[in-house]
Amino acid sequence: MFEPMWLSPKVIRPIVGTRRFYIEGLDFQDPVAARIYRELLDFFGASQAADRQCADLVFIMNSAALPAERDGAYRIHTEGDCVCIEGNTATALLYGLYGWVRRKACGQQIDDFESVPNQALRMIDHWDQTDGSVERGYAGESIFFGVLGSNSHADFRNFPDRRQDDPFRGDLARVTAYARLLASIGINAIALNNVNVRGEAKKLIVEPYLDRVAVLADIFGQFGIRVFLSVNFASPIDVGGLSTADPLADEVSAWWEKIVDNVYQRIPAFGGFLVKADAEGEPGPMRYGRTHVDGANMLARPLSRHGGLVIWRAFVYDCNQDWRDRSLDRAKSAYENFIGLDGLFAENVVLQVKFGPIDFQVSEPANPLIGRMTHTNLMIEFQITAEYLGQQIDVNYVLPQWLAMTNWDTCAPQVDARVKAVVPKLCLVSAHTGFAGVSNVGMDDNWTGNTLAQANLYGFGRMCWDPDATAGSILDEWMTLTFPGLRGPAREAVSEIMLTSNKTFKNYTAPLGVGFMVKPGLHYGVDVNGYEYDRWGTYHFADRDGIGVDRTQSTGTGFTAQYHQALEERFEHAETTPDDLLLFFHHLPYDHVLHDGQTLIQHIYSSHFEGVKEVERYITLWKKVKGLIPQADWENVADRLQAQKADAVEWRDQINTYFHRMSGVPDRLGRKIYA
Amino acid sequence: MFEPMWLSPKVIRPIVGTRRFYIEGLDFQDPVAARIYRELLDFFGASQAADRQCADLVFIMNSAALPAERDGAYRIHTEGDCVCIEGNTATALLYGLYGWVRRKACGQQIDDFESVPNQALRMIDHWDQTDGSVERGYAGESIFFGVLGSNSHADFRNFPDRRQDDPFRGDLARVTAYARLLASIGINAIALNNVNVRGEAKKLIVEPYLDRVAVLADIFGQFGIRVFLSVNFASPIDVGGLSTADPLADEVSAWWEKIVDNVYQRIPAFGGFLVKADAEGEPGPMRYGRTHVDGANMLARPLSRHGGLVIWRAFVYDCNQDWRDRSLDRAKSAYENFIGLDGLFAENVVLQVKFGPIDFQVSEPANPLIGRMTHTNLMIEFQITAEYLGQQIDVNYVLPQWLAMTNWDTCAPQVDARVKAVVPKLCLVSAHTGFAGVSNVGMDDNWTGNTLAQANLYGFGRMCWDPDATAGSILDEWMTLTFPGLRGPAREAVSEIMLTSNKTFKNYTAPLGVGFMVKPGLHYGVDVNGYEYDRWGTYHFADRDGIGVDRTQSTGTGFTAQYHQALEERFEHAETTPDDLLLFFHHLPYDHVLHDGQTLIQHIYSSHFEGVKEVERYITLWKKVKGLIPQADWENVADRLQAQKADAVEWRDQINTYFHRMSGVPDRLGRKIYA
Repeated sequence: MFEPMWLSPKVIRPIVGTRRFYIEGLDFQDPVAARIYRELLDFFGASQAADRQCADLVFIMNSAALPAERDGAYRIHTEGDCVCIEGNTATALLYGLYGWVRRKACGQQIDDFESVPNQALRMIDHWDQTDGSVERGYAGESIFFGVLGSNSHADFRNFPDRRQDDPFRGDLARVTAYARLLASIGINAIALNNVNVRGEAKKLIVEPYLDRVAVLADIFGQFGIRVFLSVNFASPIDVGGLSTADPLADEVSAWWEKIVDNVYQRIPAFGGFLVKADAEGEPGPMRYGRTHVDGANMLARPLSRHGGLVIWRAFVYDCNQDWRDRSLDRAKSAYENFIGLDGLFAENVVLQVKFGPIDFQVSEPANPLIGRMTHTNLMIEFQITAEYLGQQIDVNYVLPQWLAMTNWDTCAPQVDARVKAVVPKLCLVSAHTGFAGVSNVGMDDNWTGNTLAQANLYGFGRMCWDPDATAGSILDEWMTLTFPGLRGPAREAVSEIMLTSNKTFKNYTAPLGVGFMVKPGLHYGVDVNGYEYDRWGTYHFADRDGIGVDRTQSTGTGFTAQYHQALEERFEHAETTPDDLLLFFHHLPYDHVLHDGQTLIQHIYSSHFEGVKEVERYITLWKKVKGLIPQADWENVADRLQAQKADAVEWRDQINTYFHRMSGVPDRLGRKIYA
Repeated sequence: MFEPMWLSPKVIRPIVGTRRFYIEGLDFQDPVAARIYRELLDFFGASQAADRQCADLVFIMNSAALPAERDGAYRIHTEGDCVCIEGNTATALLYGLYGWVRRKACGQQIDDFESVPNQALRMIDHWDQTDGSVERGYAGESIFFGVLGSNSHADFRNFPDRRQDDPFRGDLARVTAYARLLASIGINAIALNNVNVRGEAKKLIVEPYLDRVAVLADIFGQFGIRVFLSVNFASPIDVGGLSTADPLADEVSAWWEKIVDNVYQRIPAFGGFLVKADAEGEPGPMRYGRTHVDGANMLARPLSRHGGLVIWRAFVYDCNQDWRDRSLDRAKSAYENFIGLDGLFAENVVLQVKFGPIDFQVSEPANPLIGRMTHTNLMIEFQITAEYLGQQIDVNYVLPQWLAMTNWDTCAPQVDARVKAVVPKLCLVSAHTGFAGVSNVGMDDNWTGNTLAQANLYGFGRMCWDPDATAGSILDEWMTLTFPGLRGPAREAVSEIMLTSNKTFKNYTAPLGVGFMVKPGLHYGVDVNGYEYDRWGTYHFADRDGIGVDRTQSTGTGFTAQYHQALEERFEHAETTPDDLLLFFHHLPYDHVLHDGQTLIQHIYSSHFEGVKEVERYITLWKKVKGLIPQADWENVADRLQAQKADAVEWRDQINTYFHRMSGVPDRLGRKIYA
């Protein structure tokens, strides 16, 4: 059975279950309204008041209650013992319910409190595949899809007519719990299937699979979450039997129109399509000599009639790069491919941009498109699943990194030019912008493989809603809600582990923003040269004299020119580049002196020794937690900390030996570096 | 349909088909005798003479014809137009038939010719698996095993009762052709299945699979080839349901005795068992605190009653080595594990030793056990399938390397201390020694993936029989037999390509005996550090100053001490170590001067530039061959030469760039090395 995560009955039922509620102004034909009712009665065990006067928990649907600019905003005030939650939509009231419970549980002020989501689209992207596997998943199989009998947790009773080859798992109790968890942190959109749309997944947009999708969409819809599907751009050929997928061919757009109309007939609240086109071998409009605009707008047209969106990924680059050609620079790809298309995309097209210019590394600058692409709706893509960040074996609470990204100053000519501000501001339609996170959940009992990785899912939702929150405040909430028994030194221990974990991971992996150095394909574990002579465009260029990628205009690839001037000037020079990003922008000699006064080579050695020490410290700290959280969770993390230590030791030794062999420079402190 | 390889009807039928044969002294109850008869009538189309007088091809079984010391020897003499082939066994006469045809086709002297095989056991080891895959196979699926429908070439009609889950392919026409091809080059033993015995393969020793094995054994038996099976040492548990596989437990030896007796009841000419024990994770006697001797002799006991052998692999090493510990040396493993057991193995145990101390690299010294292990039967293991030698994509005629190995002087105190001489001499029973080669054939029409790789299979058999032959003479035979139309400059072109190909491959891959630098797992293509920080014990230790493994006694791992004194002294010093093996034995600075006057680093650069140039030359040379061999064969090689060129270019550039980055030394000739 799956864990409750941050909706622990121990914590939340005492808050709500004692209340008598009253709901005002809601139309119970609205599935979200019906859901609030059921949540209060069934999930929280509250009782219904006969009238408003004898209620002490009142929900008021009031379309004028809050500014309409941000769907989902709610206000809470108290009248004596009575708590009033106001919102201008049913979903806002649902958020208000969970927001009140959370604030109450966490001892936060609840009287006269107004909460407005920062980002309009707060989306989870699943890279789940119809065979049950999850691309870059580290927590068991997909909770949506799976081959019959492939997962011992599976509950197949929900689709009585499930056939042997039905790819849907049908574990609707789990899906409902998941939808509730997501709604409780403000998520309002979800893509069910992987952006690499292969095999049976191509047919999710048509019957009979569409009927199955509709069942899931109904559940998510009750929680105010719109369901999206990833589609293959070649579907007109592969699914429709046409001879082309050319977006300018009449039969192609007619085919998509029919598909879209049918989807909306079945799922009126359908969100739209997520598309990876012309990237890493996936088909797209460029196969027909057309542009991304041609492709996206063709799909946008029929969707716009139903209020649907096209989410078009900007993760387009040459994945057959020649390592010999140092003038090439993958970091420049998104900007080069899309900046010229700014202003040409339809109003219901959203360009989904990875937060950094490469690929979810532990240290990357922001993608230069953000703050530059000012007439296009952007969605920033984060990766909750820890593909490059320890794969939910190594503990890595990633909020400090994400919040640094959302607070990154793009230096666009705006009063507030930080990422979180320019995304909803510099666009066509603010409601069509936001943040997306690639899911880290699977069929594991604890949902996320490593129990501590639940905090990243929780934190992602909270960050979308309120990026002014701190990593510490979000962590505090998560700990209080998830582990009510966690107090005193044990709680401080978890806090200490979590808040330093992202930096620790950075310390023992690839140094100073140079990235990669991971095992090819797997992306876990050290392999200094794993990608150095490969086609993926991710190199460190270490030689006996120095290391790093020169992306300056004066001597390098010129990537720095893609930023607004103030950033461009900062990154053009090693002196003004933050140490964390130093090797992302510069190729430097091993004796280059960092801002902290260490040489580059000494920093490499020291950070790697320190990284391992930190993990060893975590193992000691974790012992304090024993007995204060469920034993299974404690062991889950204790086991992974041992694996993390082995991983960190291997990183330390291989990196240090590699660079000692290269540089010939001994460690200033005489620590053990293997020859 | 499969190619005839070196038994081309065009070449051999004109020689035999015109003859009238007479067979004297053979018992046609002997399946080999019956086979000779069928070969002459059906395969060659000859006719039977009514009596000896009107015959012009006479086979004389004469047990006193030749010295009994080498089974299979034959003598040919002519009486006018009549050719007489004499031998002391039916198999010898079969060898004589094919030997005569070959010599005749190749224009070699045939009158009064005596041929004695050099090695007693001339064995092919298949690493075929019951699912149809071939470990390290590069020529399609297994010709013996396969899942129904998995290979379009499969002919399933031969076992009328074949079930869906029957792992036997049942393509008996192909097996018969294969047995004929092997017999024609003198092979007399074959192991049907992989030494890693997993899954269904464990059950080959019992019914119903044993019945299927018997069908194959009957076919091979007709050609004088004894069939062996690889067995899993844990079979008493996995197959027999016992609780232990302890070789000293009575129930274990009783179980094996029953198994062996049953196998021989079904297959009287069964060869014996091939065993990989306590190696790379496979089970073995050491799991029970027993020795290799305990394990091998326990199996040998029941086999000895039927004339069967235990072939016990000496490929035992720690595959969980720590790269940090430079005192460890995988090269020392075979010697360290087995030298103390010399003289303890039973007379029908054969220790199978890989020719080099590591693993079939393009440049390795001989295994020091050879010439040192003097009271044990040895079989030297070669790898015909080109796992590390280009995987039948890159052309690599390996006979020059193999013949150098068989002619390697072990410096044992013997008149002739070369490998080929000490193997049959320093042992318990000369008839239980020999050479084994890991098969390179599969279901591909041309059997070996690259048509030119047929020459390695041909050459292996010929080398076992006559290691005094040269790589050139063996190649000449193979070309004449396989491509009768190949003459003049085209023939010279093939000759030139083949005879230089092994050196060319050596040139563009890991330098000077250091080995590996291949893609992990795959073993094809360059990855300089692919194994450098891994657990397999195969390192190059390159740093900014030098490269190589110090295996000397004075400063290194002491491996050199495992050789006889003269070799030990030679390898202990860089000055007396052949350049080819320099980095196998020594860690040397990049400016070390080789025997040819170049520095080490300059040699690395130059050999890699030259390697690619050679492959480019092969492409040009191969054009001369067009039209003179079947078009499919020509294209097969032409395509692979292009792939080989891409491979060689990648090796050249990655190796040169890597060592340029490391050493900082420019190429003396200013050729292009990428930064």
